[in-house]
Amino acid sequence: MQADGEFDLISRYFKKPAPARMLGVGDDCALMPLSPGYELAISTDMLVEGRHFLPDADPESLGHKALAVNLSDLAAMGARPLACTLALSLPAVDHAWLAGFSSGFHALARESGCPLVGGDTTRSDTGVVLSITVLGEVRRSHALRRDAARVGDDVWVSGTLGAADLALRLTLGRLPPDPERLRATLPALDRPVPRLGLGRYLAGVANAAVDVSDGLLQDFSHILQASRCGADLWLDALPAHPALAGLDEALRREALLSGGDAYELCFTAQPQWREQIQVLGSQLEVPVTRVGTLVRGTGVRVLDGAGGIVPVVRQGFDHFSAPHGARA
Amino acid sequence: MQADGEFDLISRYFKKPAPARMLGVGDDCALMPLSPGYELAISTDMLVEGRHFLPDADPESLGHKALAVNLSDLAAMGARPLACTLALSLPAVDHAWLAGFSSGFHALARESGCPLVGGDTTRSDTGVVLSITVLGEVRRSHALRRDAARVGDDVWVSGTLGAADLALRLTLGRLPPDPERLRATLPALDRPVPRLGLGRYLAGVANAAVDVSDGLLQDFSHILQASRCGADLWLDALPAHPALAGLDEALRREALLSGGDAYELCFTAQPQWREQIQVLGSQLEVPVTRVGTLVRGTGVRVLDGAGGIVPVVRQGFDHFSAPHGARA
Repeated sequence: MQADGEFDLISRYFKKPAPARMLGVGDDCALMPLSPGYELAISTDMLVEGRHFLPDADPESLGHKALAVNLSDLAAMGARPLACTLALSLPAVDHAWLAGFSSGFHALARESGCPLVGGDTTRSDTGVVLSITVLGEVRRSHALRRDAARVGDDVWVSGTLGAADLALRLTLGRLPPDPERLRATLPALDRPVPRLGLGRYLAGVANAAVDVSDGLLQDFSHILQASRCGADLWLDALPAHPALAGLDEALRREALLSGGDAYELCFTAQPQWREQIQVLGSQLEVPVTRVGTLVRGTGVRVLDGAGGIVPVVRQGFDHFSAPHGARA
Repeated sequence: MQADGEFDLISRYFKKPAPARMLGVGDDCALMPLSPGYELAISTDMLVEGRHFLPDADPESLGHKALAVNLSDLAAMGARPLACTLALSLPAVDHAWLAGFSSGFHALARESGCPLVGGDTTRSDTGVVLSITVLGEVRRSHALRRDAARVGDDVWVSGTLGAADLALRLTLGRLPPDPERLRATLPALDRPVPRLGLGRYLAGVANAAVDVSDGLLQDFSHILQASRCGADLWLDALPAHPALAGLDEALRREALLSGGDAYELCFTAQPQWREQIQVLGSQLEVPVTRVGTLVRGTGVRVLDGAGGIVPVVRQGFDHFSAPHGARA
């Protein structure tokens, strides 16, 4: 296996200068001007059996999750969903599987106002491969772009972190069996809730946002790189899922800082918006937590309660450099 | 293997009533109202190694073709390309392959005014899987929908038919080696040219259109079913590629009527437009040929020069009912 990361591949082979007035490859969504006053946000993801989900994954949960992770990209742009397409490659026609998958998919599509408007099914000889494209709209110049964070911004995280990562470790047998913790964390892994409402209301308030799919440090670093600044994150402020209580500290840190599949929003906003963001979180019943601040420089310093720098080993997940099958 | 066809799967599991003012699953593209006076056309395709292309396919040609077949769906709606996304699942990072693929892809993207605005790359353990979504725009109520054909319409076909099918048979060794015919037909298989210009100018002139990807009879039958009419097609009028001359008659018919991968447009228009369509074809340097007429009833009758009905066996290609690997 070679060392190239997923992002290097996109950037090396597929990133071209976007046409004027368009935002191209390299954000949560692409942006295109269309209706007066609005931009179209577009995002595409591919999910591969054995890599992004296990062969015995519950099809209804998979249908939900496949769409949820794409909607999460719209949420991270502050966009309202408009429609989606689905391409599906299957080893055989399994009606029970298709019924479950489409049921989970459509339930979330309906709930999110994101109807399926195009599809393609084809046969493969191997596992299931899914590709979903979502389209959304966002008011012009209100999109939460990665390159719009500014030194002095607060750093915020929605919801809690670490549950999906813990559930995955338990599912894969990488931790001793713990049925209670598994029960408490499995919904976060199987049925993530895209933060669409929060994202939409943050558009025009927050400066920049990403969704946490590959781990907080890795995803947040995309904002820092695109916006050319650094950050201090306060370890003790990070909103840990209750099921992380009592875990070994190193494991807890790793789940918080590098655990994937959270699908929470990490966003930055000027300090003047603190109260409004808290009120917004209360109204939407989505916890929002201030976890750091943007500084001059590059990279992230993770600080403990005493102001000491926490050493960070694993940044997050990368499809091409991680060992195969590392992630459900 | 089960008997369900690709279209049954989409219709059974994924087709839902489209929201008002939207055209959903089941045409070449979905349509959504966006800018005043225009609709957004969306189409998604998935290409799987070993099924849609051979493992040793030239990557540059593959990059071209993967985008071309999607642009062909926009052409068949009469839409102008706006942008595309690409999701790519790869067994390993092969720089020579990626460089070739992206070069072929981007050359056609540039030429067609269809920039790549979003992407996802991921690792698979098996062959390459590609999924492309294209977006285009078409003037409101001008889109070439499948359900808008009318009894009395002429049936037209662009370009010529049969070359890609013949090239595929020769490539797969299903015909005796014939280097001259292979040389004459391979470009049609490897580098199809989406009929974007013709499609755009037909929008507002023609009533209905499809692109011929799975075989003329099969693709055309989608128009007939959606528009609830039947058709007479004149076998001798079908525009055969010159390389089909001298072939066994049964093989020639099959290549014309059921050969896939042609990516020509089959469209219907009222007889009053005959001259204008011929002029349009001349101006665009795309042959356009009148090959039949729409009648009351259902299904297609293929008529020979004496008015006799030509028996038709194979309608076209279906991913789920055809034997595996039947198609490059």
